[in-house]
Amino acid sequence: MNEVVEKVVAGDVRTVARLIRDIDDGVPEVREILKALYPHTGNAYVIGITGAPGVGKSTLVDQMVTHLRKRDKTVGVLAVDPTSPFSGGAILGDRVRMQRHSMDQGVFIRSLATRGHFGGLTQSTRSAIDVLDAMGKDYILVETVGVGQDEVDVVKSAHTTVVVVIPGMGDDIQAIKAGILEVADIFVINKADREGTDKTLSDLRLMIDMDHKKYEEGSWKPPILKTQAVFDKGVKELLEEIEKHGKHLIESTGGLHVRRKKEKVRDELVEMVKSRLYEEVVNRLILTGEFDRAVESIVEGKLDPYTACDDLVIPKLDL
Amino acid sequence: MNEVVEKVVAGDVRTVARLIRDIDDGVPEVREILKALYPHTGNAYVIGITGAPGVGKSTLVDQMVTHLRKRDKTVGVLAVDPTSPFSGGAILGDRVRMQRHSMDQGVFIRSLATRGHFGGLTQSTRSAIDVLDAMGKDYILVETVGVGQDEVDVVKSAHTTVVVVIPGMGDDIQAIKAGILEVADIFVINKADREGTDKTLSDLRLMIDMDHKKYEEGSWKPPILKTQAVFDKGVKELLEEIEKHGKHLIESTGGLHVRRKKEKVRDELVEMVKSRLYEEVVNRLILTGEFDRAVESIVEGKLDPYTACDDLVIPKLDL
Repeated sequence: MNEVVEKVVAGDVRTVARLIRDIDDGVPEVREILKALYPHTGNAYVIGITGAPGVGKSTLVDQMVTHLRKRDKTVGVLAVDPTSPFSGGAILGDRVRMQRHSMDQGVFIRSLATRGHFGGLTQSTRSAIDVLDAMGKDYILVETVGVGQDEVDVVKSAHTTVVVVIPGMGDDIQAIKAGILEVADIFVINKADREGTDKTLSDLRLMIDMDHKKYEEGSWKPPILKTQAVFDKGVKELLEEIEKHGKHLIESTGGLHVRRKKEKVRDELVEMVKSRLYEEVVNRLILTGEFDRAVESIVEGKLDPYTACDDLVIPKLDL
Repeated sequence: MNEVVEKVVAGDVRTVARLIRDIDDGVPEVREILKALYPHTGNAYVIGITGAPGVGKSTLVDQMVTHLRKRDKTVGVLAVDPTSPFSGGAILGDRVRMQRHSMDQGVFIRSLATRGHFGGLTQSTRSAIDVLDAMGKDYILVETVGVGQDEVDVVKSAHTTVVVVIPGMGDDIQAIKAGILEVADIFVINKADREGTDKTLSDLRLMIDMDHKKYEEGSWKPPILKTQAVFDKGVKELLEEIEKHGKHLIESTGGLHVRRKKEKVRDELVEMVKSRLYEEVVNRLILTGEFDRAVESIVEGKLDPYTACDDLVIPKLDL
């Protein structure tokens, strides 16, 4: 185990790749390695990039990597895909696009699909961030799809979260849901040469203004940037804005490392406990056959699922 | 309790509204009522409608309700919003649009936000479906936002799941992720008067064809429909296609009620156990202060989160 830890800290690509695959597969032995790596974390700047499918997140990430590399920063990229419970797979997409960085030693790119277990996506992502952090990457870009609770949870680990939209994404009310507004530090309107950009801009501005009234003075008000990632337009400005947000974070938290902030630690621990409970209890119930017997009884109409749940869960707890 | 059950089964709107609010708030007493209601469920046809924000799901649902009412069918609508962990609220949107049905006794519309507890959205939705089912609604339309795992889990309770997209939602590869393809029984291209409709149609068709090769003969191949929900175009055809899918389900499962199918029962029970574990263990850890003490130790750098998780979870389990 010590050898693995040493190799990760030394930046050994093959060891890191294997470790992240094990995290993704839910291999229990990983836990001890993560414990030992933890003291080596806390140095990377984590940027979350989220938005609906098709808004151009991957292209944006790709350009951001190029800019960061020009500044001699090392970069880790995690592409987080919602998993299909059946096929268990993320499809092509993100990896294909990133190929131009594949020969660059300063860039490490991985997709997470969380094949091994349900409900562990957030936890796997956090652990993978810790690994890239311990590996010594200066920046970690986490790309997530969509606006579900899962994605919101994932980007909560980031120092700065960028929400990407495109012009004409539906009308005023539905365009941005509350959940996303809460996590957005910066909004990006990508494909900003398209019709409807001004409308989207003013809608977003209104929404941010309305939302911002809730917060105290001196709190961060999310800026809105226009980009055309395909043509590398606006990407430099985005990185500048991220830097600005980073400075704001450091000032407002008294220089404390943000991921160590109480609120974030709390959120992370909740997630961790949740996925641990699942692993320990549900996996065991499946292994012993108890779970399948309960399913049979429900299918045969002998038992309702609410009672079945009581019968399965309560004896496993020592409260 | 018996009174509540009787009133729900008799279709009493006020009792149902209160019960669904209690489900949404995670009131534990609800569990016994749900057990007693379960024998009264299994008669409604559940339709899931999912897609990214802004594709026009609510308008589509609204038109579907109108058509179903013309056929004298009673309808329940559940609008499931991703919750903001901070504001805990769904915003205006869906309710506003549905107002034209608000005086119709045959329609019951509610939003779920799952204010009470994290991770319980899927479970709350399922319980709310059971309530509307026991209440005697012929059709239950469940509208969910996005493409995350949460949403995928939610629509797994449906007999038929409709995935709504709009033309020009990004390029080929990213437009539809694997997770959504697995749950889609019918694809709808809404706003089909827009530029790019044909491209979206052929992309979808290709993807379905590729995916479909995996399945055995006689399995359902998702059709693609074009709609313009605002002008009520294609909505009637959509309902016909849903009916066709329903017939296919009955034939392929030997007339068994689909939600009683082993696979669905299994998925539902996993979700139920998951959210129950969370409620029992995490809520208790928070109540006793153990959780906050662990957070403090991590913030102070005395403890890593992985060890903290072990210390919190393991003593609560009796395995």
